Amino acid sequence: MQRYFVPENNWQSNSVSIDGEDAHHIIRVMRMQIGDEIICNTPQGQSATCKISMIQEKEVVAEIIGWLDKSSELPVFVTIAQGLPKGDKMDLVLQKGTELGAKAFIPFQAERSVVKWDSRKVEKKLSRYAKIVKEASEQSHRNYLPEIKSVMNLQALIMESKRYDVKIIAYEEEAKTDTFRSFASIVKSLSKDSKVLVCIGPEGGLSMEEVNKLKEYDFIPVRLGPRILRTETAALYVLSSISYHLEELEGLSCQQ
Amino acid sequence: MQRYFVPENNWQSNSVSIDGEDAHHIIRVMRMQIGDEIICNTPQGQSATCKISMIQEKEVVAEIIGWLDKSSELPVFVTIAQGLPKGDKMDLVLQKGTELGAKAFIPFQAERSVVKWDSRKVEKKLSRYAKIVKEASEQSHRNYLPEIKSVMNLQALIMESKRYDVKIIAYEEEAKTDTFRSFASIVKSLSKDSKVLVCIGPEGGLSMEEVNKLKEYDFIPVRLGPRILRTETAALYVLSSISYHLEELEGLSCQQ
Repeated sequence: MQRYFVPENNWQSNSVSIDGEDAHHIIRVMRMQIGDEIICNTPQGQSATCKISMIQEKEVVAEIIGWLDKSSELPVFVTIAQGLPKGDKMDLVLQKGTELGAKAFIPFQAERSVVKWDSRKVEKKLSRYAKIVKEASEQSHRNYLPEIKSVMNLQALIMESKRYDVKIIAYEEEAKTDTFRSFASIVKSLSKDSKVLVCIGPEGGLSMEEVNKLKEYDFIPVRLGPRILRTETAALYVLSSISYHLEELEGLSCQQ
Repeated sequence: MQRYFVPENNWQSNSVSIDGEDAHHIIRVMRMQIGDEIICNTPQGQSATCKISMIQEKEVVAEIIGWLDKSSELPVFVTIAQGLPKGDKMDLVLQKGTELGAKAFIPFQAERSVVKWDSRKVEKKLSRYAKIVKEASEQSHRNYLPEIKSVMNLQALIMESKRYDVKIIAYEEEAKTDTFRSFASIVKSLSKDSKVLVCIGPEGGLSMEEVNKLKEYDFIPVRLGPRILRTETAALYVLSSISYHLEELEGLSCQQ
């Protein structure tokens, strides 16, 4: 069934009103009729089956038939802080990361990020990113729309990290040290609703200074298998592995 | 150190000769000099550190200094049979699948594949795919160059599957049945060098007929987490999870 994320203000007690691009999608693309059913998600992650009761030029109203208790959310809260990559790789991280269950993304202006975000373009970029994440959430049957935070530098990322229970750095050099802690031991230690922040360098990786600074603030460097992953693949490995371990191996599900 | 995959015929007992695009890369792109070191991989997956001893117009000769015993190969042999997807999604599956350790790829002409491979274009396509896989192998420090097999239909895929120990289908509907077997229980059952064939449908998924036919031939349908993954994301989830379980959780490494 088609899914839509509907903003807070559009919910009434027994019905929901859909406007903007989603109304266009229902009316013109899907060509739905009165009586057709859709699933609407609240910003808090609840989902309701709704039956369309009115179709106007630019608005659709649907009655709430029942609330669904099935959740497809990862049982932990994972934020991907992605070192700004070149080209359209950020699009891939956002789309695939959403499919794989990330709860938030932080575009991270790393030392070796070749791309510098032009302040005039930030708004346009963020609005395009929001669209990618919304479409991927609907397509992958997410209950929750991942948040895209503003671009952060190292200092801002460290401030932000204080809200998290577990902080990791994807850092391929780590496996060569004696003190390295395995990624699996960290995943095993997670419990329901743990907040996990994953920091991934851009193409050139994180600098030693960045790694050392992050370590000071309790970020744990881990390797992600023995092969060298491209920057945009690291987030997908982390999210797939967390899903695999918690949802498939341990069967820890997130029931609302 | 820069890595190159060198064909069988270019290896002598103490030296290796590099020509074609790789010679161009060494001479013009990397601008290496006599005395510089590179890593050369044999088609069988062995790697040697080599020192450049001669640079000609279109050929580079390097002396073998020593063989490396470090392997970055997945401890199991995973083949991805990817239902032909639209656009350039196959490129993504090949590039990321190689980074994540796949040993072979089968382009699978599924019932719902919108794309039909034009026999005149097959050769061109396969040569482009070979280039993607070679570059990804070098970049991710693979010892082994994954094979890209010819396009197969269902019947050919079933014949091919007889060579494998474990066969799975990525099939999201499966989790709704009572008899479903978890993906994790299958990964847990793998041992070193197990041969695993993973069949993934195209955008529209596999048809019921395809799933039933594959089940007859011992393919096991599994879900990959509770979210709906796009066709090109499924292979990445499978490979990441297998790497995570065998290389990070159990620490099963593939030493040559």
